Amino acid sequence: MPNQELTRVFHALSDPTRRAVLERLTRGPAAVSALARPFNMALPSFVQHLGVLEECGLVRSKKEGRVRTYTLAPQPLKAAERWLSAQRAHWERRLDSLDNFLETLKEQRR
Amino acid sequence: MPNQELTRVFHALSDPTRRAVLERLTRGPAAVSALARPFNMALPSFVQHLGVLEECGLVRSKKEGRVRTYTLAPQPLKAAERWLSAQRAHWERRLDSLDNFLETLKEQRR
Repeated sequence: MPNQELTRVFHALSDPTRRAVLERLTRGPAAVSALARPFNMALPSFVQHLGVLEECGLVRSKKEGRVRTYTLAPQPLKAAERWLSAQRAHWERRLDSLDNFLETLKEQRR
Repeated sequence: MPNQELTRVFHALSDPTRRAVLERLTRGPAAVSALARPFNMALPSFVQHLGVLEECGLVRSKKEGRVRTYTLAPQPLKAAERWLSAQRAHWERRLDSLDNFLETLKEQRR
């Protein structure tokens, strides 16, 4: 995933309302009214959050009649997870080589 | 990790400079001057980025003489990764149950 997309995905994830919407959508698609219900928020503000999620590809929406339904699009979540796990892997590899280095030092002292 | 901390971590990750600093620090601790070198940015702006990373616990710093050195603190990265993988797990469980449901429908038709 290009750096700019990663920036937008992490920005989208940096809001508790948007994360709660994503958590809800992992259980299946939902209409705007159902998504908005748990939040004490004016509908236009809530719809803006949905817009942020849709712009970076975390959700997709479809309008049937007067009802717009949102679905999770898991690809960007996976990309963010991949970036995080790559950093952890680099970090752990470094700890392992420090560990090996210390072991070698100890061996040499014996 | 409480919701508010997750908000701060994802916010910290939503900037390419801050992500590049974290990527660099997975290879080991570094002084401010070494960290700043690859970026075409005024030092005060760069130091603000380091401040954002330190406030949410993604890095730690230590001053020796006139040199401040930064180290990665991987715990918040792991917490963010855990949140993402939990969402993926919920999503995949849902796809599995849809799959089972379709299989059951097919069995019943036979």
